[in-house]
Amino acid sequence: MSSVGKTGVVVRNIQRADQALIAELTQYGVATVHEAQGRKGLLAPSIRPIQQDFALSGSAVTVLAAPGDNWMFHVAVEQCQPGDILVMAPSSPCTDGFFGDLLATSLKARGVLGLVLDAGVRDTRTLREMGFAVWSRAVHAQGTIKETLGSVNIPIVCAGQLVNPGDVVLADDDGVVIVRRDELPAVVEASRKRADLEEQKRLRLAAGELGLDIYNMRPRLAEKGLRYVDSLDDV
Amino acid sequence: MSSVGKTGVVVRNIQRADQALIAELTQYGVATVHEAQGRKGLLAPSIRPIQQDFALSGSAVTVLAAPGDNWMFHVAVEQCQPGDILVMAPSSPCTDGFFGDLLATSLKARGVLGLVLDAGVRDTRTLREMGFAVWSRAVHAQGTIKETLGSVNIPIVCAGQLVNPGDVVLADDDGVVIVRRDELPAVVEASRKRADLEEQKRLRLAAGELGLDIYNMRPRLAEKGLRYVDSLDDV
Amino acid sequence: MSSVGKTGVVVRNIQRADQALIAELTQYGVATVHEAQGRKGLLAPSIRPIQQDFALSGSAVTVLAAPGDNWMFHVAVEQCQPGDILVMAPSSPCTDGFFGDLLATSLKARGVLGLVLDAGVRDTRTLREMGFAVWSRAVHAQGTIKETLGSVNIPIVCAGQLVNPGDVVLADDDGVVIVRRDELPAVVEASRKRADLEEQKRLRLAAGELGLDIYNMRPRLAEKGLRYVDSLDDV
Amino acid sequence: MSSVGKTGVVVRNIQRADQALIAELTQYGVATVHEAQGRKGLLAPSIRPIQQDFALSGSAVTVLAAPGDNWMFHVAVEQCQPGDILVMAPSSPCTDGFFGDLLATSLKARGVLGLVLDAGVRDTRTLREMGFAVWSRAVHAQGTIKETLGSVNIPIVCAGQLVNPGDVVLADDDGVVIVRRDELPAVVEASRKRADLEEQKRLRLAAGELGLDIYNMRPRLAEKGLRYVDSLDDV
Amino acid sequence: MSSVGKTGVVVRNIQRADQALIAELTQYGVATVHEAQGRKGLLAPSIRPIQQDFALSGSAVTVLAAPGDNWMFHVAVEQCQPGDILVMAPSSPCTDGFFGDLLATSLKARGVLGLVLDAGVRDTRTLREMGFAVWSRAVHAQGTIKETLGSVNIPIVCAGQLVNPGDVVLADDDGVVIVRRDELPAVVEASRKRADLEEQKRLRLAAGELGLDIYNMRPRLAEKGLRYVDSLDDV
Amino acid sequence: MSSVGKTGVVVRNIQRADQALIAELTQYGVATVHEAQGRKGLLAPSIRPIQQDFALSGSAVTVLAAPGDNWMFHVAVEQCQPGDILVMAPSSPCTDGFFGDLLATSLKARGVLGLVLDAGVRDTRTLREMGFAVWSRAVHAQGTIKETLGSVNIPIVCAGQLVNPGDVVLADDDGVVIVRRDELPAVVEASRKRADLEEQKRLRLAAGELGLDIYNMRPRLAEKGLRYVDSLDDV
Repeated sequence: MSSVGKTGVVVRNIQRADQALIAELTQYGVATVHEAQGRKGLLAPSIRPIQQDFALSGSAVTVLAAPGDNWMFHVAVEQCQPGDILVMAPSSPCTDGFFGDLLATSLKARGVLGLVLDAGVRDTRTLREMGFAVWSRAVHAQGTIKETLGSVNIPIVCAGQLVNPGDVVLADDDGVVIVRRDELPAVVEASRKRADLEEQKRLRLAAGELGLDIYNMRPRLAEKGLRYVDSLDDV
Repeated sequence: MSSVGKTGVVVRNIQRADQALIAELTQYGVATVHEAQGRKGLLAPSIRPIQQDFALSGSAVTVLAAPGDNWMFHVAVEQCQPGDILVMAPSSPCTDGFFGDLLATSLKARGVLGLVLDAGVRDTRTLREMGFAVWSRAVHAQGTIKETLGSVNIPIVCAGQLVNPGDVVLADDDGVVIVRRDELPAVVEASRKRADLEEQKRLRLAAGELGLDIYNMRPRLAEKGLRYVDSLDDV
Repeated sequence: MSSVGKTGVVVRNIQRADQALIAELTQYGVATVHEAQGRKGLLAPSIRPIQQDFALSGSAVTVLAAPGDNWMFHVAVEQCQPGDILVMAPSSPCTDGFFGDLLATSLKARGVLGLVLDAGVRDTRTLREMGFAVWSRAVHAQGTIKETLGSVNIPIVCAGQLVNPGDVVLADDDGVVIVRRDELPAVVEASRKRADLEEQKRLRLAAGELGLDIYNMRPRLAEKGLRYVDSLDDV
Repeated sequence: MSSVGKTGVVVRNIQRADQALIAELTQYGVATVHEAQGRKGLLAPSIRPIQQDFALSGSAVTVLAAPGDNWMFHVAVEQCQPGDILVMAPSSPCTDGFFGDLLATSLKARGVLGLVLDAGVRDTRTLREMGFAVWSRAVHAQGTIKETLGSVNIPIVCAGQLVNPGDVVLADDDGVVIVRRDELPAVVEASRKRADLEEQKRLRLAAGELGLDIYNMRPRLAEKGLRYVDSLDDV
Repeated sequence: MSSVGKTGVVVRNIQRADQALIAELTQYGVATVHEAQGRKGLLAPSIRPIQQDFALSGSAVTVLAAPGDNWMFHVAVEQCQPGDILVMAPSSPCTDGFFGDLLATSLKARGVLGLVLDAGVRDTRTLREMGFAVWSRAVHAQGTIKETLGSVNIPIVCAGQLVNPGDVVLADDDGVVIVRRDELPAVVEASRKRADLEEQKRLRLAAGELGLDIYNMRPRLAEKGLRYVDSLDDV
Repeated sequence: MSSVGKTGVVVRNIQRADQALIAELTQYGVATVHEAQGRKGLLAPSIRPIQQDFALSGSAVTVLAAPGDNWMFHVAVEQCQPGDILVMAPSSPCTDGFFGDLLATSLKARGVLGLVLDAGVRDTRTLREMGFAVWSRAVHAQGTIKETLGSVNIPIVCAGQLVNPGDVVLADDDGVVIVRRDELPAVVEASRKRADLEEQKRLRLAAGELGLDIYNMRPRLAEKGLRYVDSLDDV
């Protein structure tokens, strides 16, 4: 684990998960996939999208950057392939605008479609017009410098979660969840099942059945001591 | 007042206000109704809508839940009627995603159209597509458990305001305001008058008259000592 | 500098910059203009727009107000000219809703198109429908009183930046930047050049060239000690 | 409940709980009393003491104040008796310094020993030297005005909890908890028992016994599926 | 005003106020001096002391630094004289630990006794042991680099207030207030009077007189409509 | 890396670093050790001590807990040895008071001296009196339940940093830093050297030498374009 947060290194070859499985995740969404993998891997809710009603999945190319220094983004571009998503964390808390439309243009040219960063972003209107999706901690026009080395494609901690290069990133309006590369097949399978079950429940709930009955909650509620009274005066 | 925050109780029968009066509130909006009732009942501004350009009013069905535990939502559904709005507060601060599209489906089947909660919500895109309106403290995919009792339809404190079951909830882009059930007729009447007055003022202001003159502010400003100078050098 | 924050004064005559130059700023956007003037003048990122995909520039009419007191807005309207933007700061931190649609109607009648305030705003849906642009710290229906004097058209500190009356305000989705009135011609010139350069780079980046090569970063990265390795095992 | 948050009223006579029972609470502390009364009544953790290693209990005299306006404190002093604690909330969020050493001097002269407020306090060093205890949201030298009516001795919501005049306030280094006046005897009794039990457990734990055994947790942990493995490689 | 926030400049000669008057400020404290000068110049309450029960006043030597870069502190040391207080703001929000015991040692050797910074500080225990007083936004061990120029002794905005080199800084447990150099004699005079008046009031309040009577508030409260009732039932 | 955040597992045997080296760290302090290991491993500054002027180092026993559920603390006690420090993170953000004096008594009986947690703590006064050191995100009396499994001694992310069981924890007034177990010897060696160098510099600085000269900064400052001017008028 000593490689987490190490600076001055670029890892050229990372393993990526199966593209079809990665793509399938977007159907299920962050909330379902997070549940399906046992409620782990969810980034902090401070990370919010700059666009609405959009979902994206891809392989993580990780960037560790010094606070206020976006040099490593330029280094990272070269390591990206179509279908990748950049995931960046600063080595100390910082909301500067590390990323704007020029870097997005460069990434788009390589087939990268999105970015998740625990920092600030700028040129947000242009990014939306370009269709380049971003999840960030802040929108901030404050620029950055290019003086200090970070790393590319090492394990990083982003918004409270460990992200390894090649891990799978799923992001939508609810936030961002990380799926370990080697767990992807199992997580997709579990997500399918969960989505199927949810669809069945949705039909029954839409028809007016109560969750209390579908899930047989009444006996356990009674056992815990839930009391039904007729009015507030009886409380 | 000892019933505020009491756990393990469901109150079955609550009194609701007149539906026509409730519905009328949406014309006036949160800012006007808040003023009309003497600037009370406004939830903290940390409660924000997940949709835009939308207003809603209804009768409060209240939910008190343990942090990270959404069991009581299922209990609450059964107590809802068409035209109700669920209002939920956790018994300790928590931004987990207590609520998603399945619960919304169930509530919608009963005629409930919206939710106000001092906690997190998930499946936000689906909720918008369903037309189920939500005002929340956070968007967070983090799921919850079903282990601890709370209560339904007791008085709760939500985002800094006391909410009684059957109180009237008005929510729009500006936030959420609570109107006491027994004060609704008076508040609607006051809102009507205020809206009329505002419309008259709007016409005069739009025509170029100054508030300084419409409200006759100049003498009092002078009395308080306001000085007009020609340039910054005279300050 | 003793005039900063002084209360009880209205300055009637302020100097404004050339309107054509002011208007030109909107083409370049906050991020570019902030860079072009040497990374100064950017308001804190807590100031956010209530509308999306919109840019505005104009001359600052400044308002200093007591917390929870919007009296000075009415005084300020009279001092406004077409093309002005109101910039307001409270003398103590406050998120009350100092501003709503009536004041916006009055300002619009005088040709003012927008507002920047380090405080709260209300009637946000109506403001969007009116096309009156606002950047604020909060959306809050909480009203204000009219009891205490502030000032109009003195230098104020708004969201961390000094703003003089007549300074130029540029606001878009990325935030708000202040340009000193006497520096506007130079800043516009620098913005033009920067925008031209960015356009050239954009074309090269879109064609697949790397920033690493365009900016000749490789030698300096090597000099700082950046290591490329084949896999994580080599870290 | 319509009296909650009503402005312009002073209630002269309030009922107070038994002073001996009130005083006994300080032995048990906020954490124990909060548990003993079923985990309700705890103010938000944003309310912090300005002094250390100190506990206080008393009868609540409540103050509702306009934001940035401390007029009602002066009205409240007259309503205080020895053994009271002032509990104040602003009608809109505000961190101004509503309270300083002069008001403390006046309250001390009447036998009041402390203050809980969801706002700011100033003269903190002097207050510590006077032995006047304060729990506040902020330390802030910003002064306030005296223009707008609030109320004294009506029910208020302070830091997320309903506080009735005459309710019992217990405050220490862990925060502040409110005990309903009519529930005090039962809460004291429950606190005694809880403190006794905790003392017994403390002795056993200090002697090296494990909570796992004292509380017989092992079977339930096993039933939930807890696995013990020899090393990380076995996970 | 164009010099505010300009980078790359060190101003060698600044004017300082009379040392005896500066020193006198500490007797009155931040809250009183802030009132005495008309409630202006108070830094945001997010700036907190790392030591307790301590007050300090001195002449401001200002430092503008790039985020995460403390180079300018070393430049600033040379410009300091006995009795100065360093006041530092980053050009973009940053909580890194810009300052520690080595810089404090250097400043102490030149007779500087304290620091106010809108950023982070480290080595806090050692600083307390050295008797070097600090008011900061955060305690953070995160170090900084030395790559980018800022400025020394230009006007800066620190925690929401404009600070000119040579302005007078007063800091105590309540926070930090800035007094303009040329206004110091008048502010000291007003503080003396205010302190005298407060002392007289303190004696009367300590003797049990009410503020309601001392300030003759009763008629105005009645005029505003304050109602006294006997019990909550009468509300 | 798939073991990070896995629930339902207790790892019995973890490797610990050399106790003498661990203990030596406290001499150098968090700021110096963080620098000595290349500025990595520092927990977010939101983690603050409940005691002052105290430093502690030890081997990490890690606890992953469900939000609002402290069951795993009881499981963790059994896995502790003298010299250990508990490091706990909730699986979703939560400031409840997971830890109090009873658990501290149990841990103390096993030779554990401290706790670092990204959550709340209670009984803070008693903990200080016991000499049991705690670094936490909040002080909060809110209790927790015992219903959901977490894990003990798996890798966790705490306040933004990955912590492996057996990693070395150093905590003082400046915060908390994590040192990888296998890097401890090198980090201690580097810390020694750094402390020696700092001591030498301290003596020179205390004698009045300037950092500008000791570090030979003047040429590079000039090269970057730093201008010295005589007065503000020359800016």
